[in-house]
Amino acid sequence: MHGKTAGWLNPMTDQDQNLAAIVNTTQGSYRVIVGRDVIDDLGFELKKTGLQGRAFLVADEVMFPNPTRRAQEALERGGYATHLLALEIGESNKNLETVQLVYDWLAELRADRGDIVVAMGGGVTGDLVGFAAATWLRGVAVVHVPTSLAAMVDSSIGGKTGVNIPNGKNLLGAFHQPKLVLQDVGHLDSLPAREMSAGWAEAVKHGIILDAQLLDTFERLAPQMRALEGDEPVDAIRKSVAIKGDIVSADEFETGDHRILLNYGHTIGHAIEKVSGYGTYLHGEAVAIGMMAAGKIAVQLGMIDTNLLNRQRAVLESYALPTRAVGLDVNEMIEATKSDKKSRGGTIRWVLLEGPGKATTRCDVPEELVREAIQSILD
Amino acid sequence: MHGKTAGWLNPMTDQDQNLAAIVNTTQGSYRVIVGRDVIDDLGFELKKTGLQGRAFLVADEVMFPNPTRRAQEALERGGYATHLLALEIGESNKNLETVQLVYDWLAELRADRGDIVVAMGGGVTGDLVGFAAATWLRGVAVVHVPTSLAAMVDSSIGGKTGVNIPNGKNLLGAFHQPKLVLQDVGHLDSLPAREMSAGWAEAVKHGIILDAQLLDTFERLAPQMRALEGDEPVDAIRKSVAIKGDIVSADEFETGDHRILLNYGHTIGHAIEKVSGYGTYLHGEAVAIGMMAAGKIAVQLGMIDTNLLNRQRAVLESYALPTRAVGLDVNEMIEATKSDKKSRGGTIRWVLLEGPGKATTRCDVPEELVREAIQSILD
Repeated sequence: MHGKTAGWLNPMTDQDQNLAAIVNTTQGSYRVIVGRDVIDDLGFELKKTGLQGRAFLVADEVMFPNPTRRAQEALERGGYATHLLALEIGESNKNLETVQLVYDWLAELRADRGDIVVAMGGGVTGDLVGFAAATWLRGVAVVHVPTSLAAMVDSSIGGKTGVNIPNGKNLLGAFHQPKLVLQDVGHLDSLPAREMSAGWAEAVKHGIILDAQLLDTFERLAPQMRALEGDEPVDAIRKSVAIKGDIVSADEFETGDHRILLNYGHTIGHAIEKVSGYGTYLHGEAVAIGMMAAGKIAVQLGMIDTNLLNRQRAVLESYALPTRAVGLDVNEMIEATKSDKKSRGGTIRWVLLEGPGKATTRCDVPEELVREAIQSILD
Repeated sequence: MHGKTAGWLNPMTDQDQNLAAIVNTTQGSYRVIVGRDVIDDLGFELKKTGLQGRAFLVADEVMFPNPTRRAQEALERGGYATHLLALEIGESNKNLETVQLVYDWLAELRADRGDIVVAMGGGVTGDLVGFAAATWLRGVAVVHVPTSLAAMVDSSIGGKTGVNIPNGKNLLGAFHQPKLVLQDVGHLDSLPAREMSAGWAEAVKHGIILDAQLLDTFERLAPQMRALEGDEPVDAIRKSVAIKGDIVSADEFETGDHRILLNYGHTIGHAIEKVSGYGTYLHGEAVAIGMMAAGKIAVQLGMIDTNLLNRQRAVLESYALPTRAVGLDVNEMIEATKSDKKSRGGTIRWVLLEGPGKATTRCDVPEELVREAIQSILD
């Protein structure tokens, strides 16, 4: 009926419209599907991906019971035997002890190499469950069902997994690409407003660093985006996902000049999280403030003018994001910046703007400029 | 002076002669160097591999202080800043707690993505330190310096890493290919005789399953091999390494029909280790007995004649390997065979001989034949 796309038709939603990205990696290619009610196609999409075996669904407890049951039923409709583990997962227990709970469960049920782990939840869930899947029997298939906006537009794509140890955040991890990423925008309806804003920070960032047109859309339609009204927000999420997917395809291991651009705002963002105490700011909030500091550096270096910095502030504020972090010590901040793990051989590689939708990296930023930039967001 | 190979000349040993294999994987290609006194070239070889950063040498305590200090000095001569951690590493502490000790050390010294982990020791060291490297900052470069024969001809090549949890052996792991494998045959001079034999089991196995000529060499020169006299043992190790390297290059993730052949003798070998209690038999010893059981199955299926089975027994015995396991319960053995993690979807994929140097896989072995084969090695 539909010619060559017939085999790709989705029983409930229009496949081609929902396909946001195809990510190409050394571990294989995978689709990122974004749409409303796509969760009901989870089993169908797994099957289309060619996955066999049992589905081990690990979900953040906040998604239990209704969203997880709906996912489980979709898996069963696809013909998969399922097991469900709902766990309280958060930054405070993103550690090996929690990973061990997943291992124990997989061991108990004798999950084998042909089985599939499905991670359903926010970014922490994806990081932690992805790590468990990466290290179980030297890696089993993982499918991400991110349910927070930040996880959708950012962490669910690209195969990064991470676990904290007492010495630091995300010091453990592995690159383990998923076989499929399925994002149901309906899951965002129950996400707290502050977490939504933190997610928009990452999405807007993609526009700021790589796509002036997307940035423009985010500026024009902020209220509509935030209300998740109509098609535009879903389209914008898809576009943001596509940017992330392209970058991962071009620079899978962050060894080149592409993937690092996504760290715009992160050097100082990480320092803010650390100095203020993890949990004070959401990651996206800290990144928003970090982008303002990075913007200040770029202005000081003459790379951009103040107008663009102001424009950045305005768009962030229109998504209810903070652009300043009051009450932190500038010296502590500088120390934290230096110990950020993105530094290599002691030199910090800064991601800085050259214009709207255009970022680059610089290793030659004098500490004095960093200090002034940090001061500008602390005042 | 030497034309196109000039750039590859080693200052102390003849590079081309010592190069046993180049392994090609999705994570990159790497050289396996085998020879006497090559440990003194460690820093030079790392440099030639293009590795930068600090070298974090993690060694089995039995290699401390002399062999580790020699390795460390070689690294320093290559211009590397080094850190050394000597750990008691064995099957009994091949767990996440020991991995955590490595993490703590790396964290303390702020090992970053550009640094190198060098694992020096036997198979357990390679598995455990390889796992730590695979999961530190989503994977840092690892170089293997295997010091046992089993690790040289088998586990150091192919990127498998593994850690035990209470529920089972090697349930955790990752595929993390090394950047270089450097094997100094001189390290074998201090290896206990029983461990040497266990290593020969894996080397001989490579001949049995894939190279009739190598099998013939192992049969003819057993006393000379065992005494490590002259060039033949080093050549045989190189040849065995090359077979392993070719298989890994052809079937990196054991998803095809190649790498599984290396599991010849392992299904029943693992069962023997489990039922007798881990540590009763060395892995290579259990594999030797397992090869005898697999040989019996092949005879029963009419794939080989009794002569080849007897020939296999003779060569194993000439390396002081056991070919029987007295005192184990046949029913327990069958149960353990079924739960071997190589099984997929419940069916055991047996690696069986079709002739000398020729192995294949079969999934249709009736339990009754398995029982008879197990009985034949228990009597």
